[in-house]
Amino acid sequence: MIRAAIVGATGIVGQQFIVALQNHPWIKIAALAASERSAGKIYKESITDPKNGAFKWYCDEICDTEILRMPVQNALEMDISGIDLVFSAVESDQAQILEPKYAATKPVISTASAYRYEQDVPILIPGINSEQIALLDKQRKARGWKGFITPNPNCTTIGMAITLKPIFDAFGIKMVLMTSLQAISGAGRNPGVIGLDILDNVIPFISGEEEKVQKETQKILGTLSENSIKPADILVSCTCTRVNVLEGHTESVFVATRQPCQPDDVARVMRDFNPLKDLGLPSAPKQMITVNSDPFRPQPRLDRNTENGMSTTVGRIRKDPALENGIKYVLVSHNTKMGAARGATLTAELLIKQGYIG
Amino acid sequence: MIRAAIVGATGIVGQQFIVALQNHPWIKIAALAASERSAGKIYKESITDPKNGAFKWYCDEICDTEILRMPVQNALEMDISGIDLVFSAVESDQAQILEPKYAATKPVISTASAYRYEQDVPILIPGINSEQIALLDKQRKARGWKGFITPNPNCTTIGMAITLKPIFDAFGIKMVLMTSLQAISGAGRNPGVIGLDILDNVIPFISGEEEKVQKETQKILGTLSENSIKPADILVSCTCTRVNVLEGHTESVFVATRQPCQPDDVARVMRDFNPLKDLGLPSAPKQMITVNSDPFRPQPRLDRNTENGMSTTVGRIRKDPALENGIKYVLVSHNTKMGAARGATLTAELLIKQGYIG
Amino acid sequence: MIRAAIVGATGIVGQQFIVALQNHPWIKIAALAASERSAGKIYKESITDPKNGAFKWYCDEICDTEILRMPVQNALEMDISGIDLVFSAVESDQAQILEPKYAATKPVISTASAYRYEQDVPILIPGINSEQIALLDKQRKARGWKGFITPNPNCTTIGMAITLKPIFDAFGIKMVLMTSLQAISGAGRNPGVIGLDILDNVIPFISGEEEKVQKETQKILGTLSENSIKPADILVSCTCTRVNVLEGHTESVFVATRQPCQPDDVARVMRDFNPLKDLGLPSAPKQMITVNSDPFRPQPRLDRNTENGMSTTVGRIRKDPALENGIKYVLVSHNTKMGAARGATLTAELLIKQGYIG
Amino acid sequence: MIRAAIVGATGIVGQQFIVALQNHPWIKIAALAASERSAGKIYKESITDPKNGAFKWYCDEICDTEILRMPVQNALEMDISGIDLVFSAVESDQAQILEPKYAATKPVISTASAYRYEQDVPILIPGINSEQIALLDKQRKARGWKGFITPNPNCTTIGMAITLKPIFDAFGIKMVLMTSLQAISGAGRNPGVIGLDILDNVIPFISGEEEKVQKETQKILGTLSENSIKPADILVSCTCTRVNVLEGHTESVFVATRQPCQPDDVARVMRDFNPLKDLGLPSAPKQMITVNSDPFRPQPRLDRNTENGMSTTVGRIRKDPALENGIKYVLVSHNTKMGAARGATLTAELLIKQGYIG
Repeated sequence: MIRAAIVGATGIVGQQFIVALQNHPWIKIAALAASERSAGKIYKESITDPKNGAFKWYCDEICDTEILRMPVQNALEMDISGIDLVFSAVESDQAQILEPKYAATKPVISTASAYRYEQDVPILIPGINSEQIALLDKQRKARGWKGFITPNPNCTTIGMAITLKPIFDAFGIKMVLMTSLQAISGAGRNPGVIGLDILDNVIPFISGEEEKVQKETQKILGTLSENSIKPADILVSCTCTRVNVLEGHTESVFVATRQPCQPDDVARVMRDFNPLKDLGLPSAPKQMITVNSDPFRPQPRLDRNTENGMSTTVGRIRKDPALENGIKYVLVSHNTKMGAARGATLTAELLIKQGYIG
Repeated sequence: MIRAAIVGATGIVGQQFIVALQNHPWIKIAALAASERSAGKIYKESITDPKNGAFKWYCDEICDTEILRMPVQNALEMDISGIDLVFSAVESDQAQILEPKYAATKPVISTASAYRYEQDVPILIPGINSEQIALLDKQRKARGWKGFITPNPNCTTIGMAITLKPIFDAFGIKMVLMTSLQAISGAGRNPGVIGLDILDNVIPFISGEEEKVQKETQKILGTLSENSIKPADILVSCTCTRVNVLEGHTESVFVATRQPCQPDDVARVMRDFNPLKDLGLPSAPKQMITVNSDPFRPQPRLDRNTENGMSTTVGRIRKDPALENGIKYVLVSHNTKMGAARGATLTAELLIKQGYIG
Repeated sequence: MIRAAIVGATGIVGQQFIVALQNHPWIKIAALAASERSAGKIYKESITDPKNGAFKWYCDEICDTEILRMPVQNALEMDISGIDLVFSAVESDQAQILEPKYAATKPVISTASAYRYEQDVPILIPGINSEQIALLDKQRKARGWKGFITPNPNCTTIGMAITLKPIFDAFGIKMVLMTSLQAISGAGRNPGVIGLDILDNVIPFISGEEEKVQKETQKILGTLSENSIKPADILVSCTCTRVNVLEGHTESVFVATRQPCQPDDVARVMRDFNPLKDLGLPSAPKQMITVNSDPFRPQPRLDRNTENGMSTTVGRIRKDPALENGIKYVLVSHNTKMGAARGATLTAELLIKQGYIG
Repeated sequence: MIRAAIVGATGIVGQQFIVALQNHPWIKIAALAASERSAGKIYKESITDPKNGAFKWYCDEICDTEILRMPVQNALEMDISGIDLVFSAVESDQAQILEPKYAATKPVISTASAYRYEQDVPILIPGINSEQIALLDKQRKARGWKGFITPNPNCTTIGMAITLKPIFDAFGIKMVLMTSLQAISGAGRNPGVIGLDILDNVIPFISGEEEKVQKETQKILGTLSENSIKPADILVSCTCTRVNVLEGHTESVFVATRQPCQPDDVARVMRDFNPLKDLGLPSAPKQMITVNSDPFRPQPRLDRNTENGMSTTVGRIRKDPALENGIKYVLVSHNTKMGAARGATLTAELLIKQGYIG
């Protein structure tokens, strides 16, 4: 069993890592770390409000008793000597400090954006850009690390990149225009989206989000060159909004392909797209993309949990009447499952399989 | 005073007409009509549930006592001899039957889509395509009517058409791609959107809506030719979704202009756009477009009621990184005020001003 | 295997029965019935909108392919000769007609209220009033039926009755005052609660609900006499409201006991209450009542699915400062699981165990 | 004109004071104060986010340009020499420090709970316990202040106290049991209720709230004795919950009166209750209590704004089947209008009228 540490274990993403890993067949949770404030407590105590006894566990799934009893270490001083892999679930500013510290000796898989845009860092999505794993060798060498850092994409990027991939491979893509309707869980709980701001409302701006999605999509679909990734030659434009939905990002996508194609062609290449099929990764969905022909789908509440939140659901694939070679569709992707801890776990599984971890 | 009849007076749009007209300086509510079921009752009785006494008045504003006491006539048999103007707030299938009946002798302003796509029927938005009023003369002549039918645009079309107009005039428009996040009030109450379907959810399809918006935008921005309107040469594509918002449609708009322009230029032409300024129409907003520079605006709950719901609020005007000569922005438009009864009232005011009514 | 028919199979409660039964170890779905409109179709077709292909399956769980292929019979003409048990998920007016028809030859377990208040009909909750099963023998005899009708309690009654039972047994109960905050799923989909009515709102009235809860609570906690049930001598008063929650009824309960007791005593008798422990019923929760000491619990979204929605969660057990021997607490009960199809399935299991079915 | 200072002017309650006072016929906003961070800025700047330009004004009403240009002082060092009255909209811990400082020389009307439970401090609701104003003379004398402190009741207390008053006067009250369904605006924005916690949910606990309502109700309905208020001999018990409503607290009330009475009697004494009728206070509602006979009312979204949020709406007045001399009803009260700034303004008006201010 691969021995993993979860850093930022008391936060919501850290808790999702616990859920993703507590019954994992290949990976064992061997250490938990958080800020100094939690250090020295056992996990249960670290997420219990001392004033009123409120138990701040935010996942639907139950936390194993064994995990509740584990000690929480100070992330700055964590002993990682016996660890094979670090999952980092901290905010970006802390990631900037902590992740290279761990990467000096161990593989780090992160949900933070801190290192996503570095030249020698791939933004891996298993099955979409698995070949970019090779960049980790360059990274190690260039930085003199025994380990490496590989971050997840932003939770809004991932569903779009997955659904664009089979289109890109089959027909080429010239341009993508996307409007997102994002769930409030994407903003976390510190304090995230305030109830007063989102009830009976839409918030049409998420700071920094659009730039991330634009840049990451080009990098993920890019090609590995010598020591970096050449971004794909795709024009990407997004408008990112927040809607009153708990989990599950909905995205309205308009695509101009390079080769003409019909909606049925797009549905077919999406249905046939199954790059992880024969790898035996425990968290991999049977279908990376679930195409639903009901015109009223996908809907975040109904479709976010498809295949444990690991499959992206696509519907309303139509000819676009405005763009040249235009296609449009709607997708739903689970922002805190495939888009965060479970997606990072899938990346870990692929890296284990390929010998980069353990 | 112009004497107006409201047909479909017991429904939600009919009630909004009552609110828009009950204190109007130029127009007096002279008759109410609804289906046979309500005929013969006084208005208050017609909207009170006989089983349990529930009072089915759905507007925030209070209904005048005088209106509550008015008799409700059968729409099929209404006496319109003393009426100057009919506001039609019925469903499209009923509009198909009722509106030509009234138009034989009287002007009809309608919120139904039944006649919007007829060759000799303009879809008027005062200040946007006021010159298309002239088509009403052709319509009268062609159909042998003393009156005419002029329908409102769809509530999703109107905000987009208004905001495109100054861009169209200043820079030309090649293409528009829009994703709407529409309020549930747009679906009415028969039963409209079911609570179970929209809580914690987005519904990514509204039957027929996208086609309407595409077609109507081209017609509204088109040019009047001999006996019809030549659609504007603009490519339009929409994806229409429903979100859990009470009132106020939010639209994410991507525009490719013909002449290059900067976000500041767009903000300026929108701020300067004020075609109704000197007309003295009682329902006209001071600003047809309110440009808000706060990056988190417009928001439907905060901006829908700007100028009594008659001004369209625009924010987030940015350069689009994908489209050639691309601009993107977000708008909020009040779907049941400017987008329905109050918008129709504004049209009535312009037609009164121009001598087409009364 | 017991062969069960589900009547009203196309509605939301019928679908929940399918979910509760499709992998059941003792019961097999042997027939589906619905209104004439669905008769003759296969199940999948009967819940697919012919106009637009929308698939009207409303449960989170997936419907087995085998069920989707089953034929749907006309409920009025269903052949029940090979059936051991009928689950009735129809509206009360239809239940009035259909249930006695089936009960003439077969056991009927119903979620409808039609027969709940008949003298010879028990309202069974396994473990709460299991001894009232004996009334079914009288019912059969009195009505000359081979089968019988036994209805579920109302979904608002069930959580309160379960949590009152251990208090009633240990300390006696003089009076109960309850305010419910009910989920919208309780109103069904025909059209149930309209989105416009419940967004940013509370509806303080549910027609007939309060009387049902008051009457049913007294009957469930009553004692079996010769040919009927003597209602418990408990004063019950409710105010039932609807809140914008999908599933899970929350109830604020004030109880005056006959013997003095402390909150700790109440928590203890609730925790110790486990009448189904040794019966081996497949749907029985491990704990009928889950006591949560976190002061912010129970919450419907977090607690409704406890033990597959079969356990009632109680929190905030406190001394009541106003009532003599007063105790107050808050409960959450899953209205469409324990409160409907799964609760009825649990009743079926107990009746099978006791030889009343099969 | 009375010259008023608003302390805590940048917060949401402070903003509501601005709205309540900016066009007031008797009171002029003469000073604004907030924490040191805002001191020295003009008001507009103090509520604009310097990082992204977001304008943090949270009221539906527009803030007057004149107010936006006013300087904000440091609350700890504010010059109140030219001020006639201080409205305090700060949190309770700051109120503890700031309010006595101001009260040494000036009248202070507060929405904070800090001084509510002091022996010489009344919790005034005009028309409900106006006679308790006399306690302010004792307070001044006992504390050696020229001014005084008089706090508003808690926003959950106020609607219940108002509706109990005519019942109390006419029939006496032995006991009150209340369950509240409170709006999220009551929790403010620091961060108040997090969107993730309240969507599709109810939170059944509001720290300290129940004790406040119980104590305040007894004090408000109490009788003035020598140097304090003797609490009314009423047993009060509450369970306070939070629901996903923006504004407007809903309360389900069960009352045991001392004299028997019928629902019609209660409706009548509520309708006839109009103690402020002849005082000419500008903020006073025409009806302190609006009785609505529609069984589906009151609803927070539909009824919170009755008479500008100053009237408490009552519905569903029924005989209670459990309590001796029992009556039950539901009320809706606007928690941030009558329950906060506008309610405090009404108190100021009464004190001005009676010569305690100015």
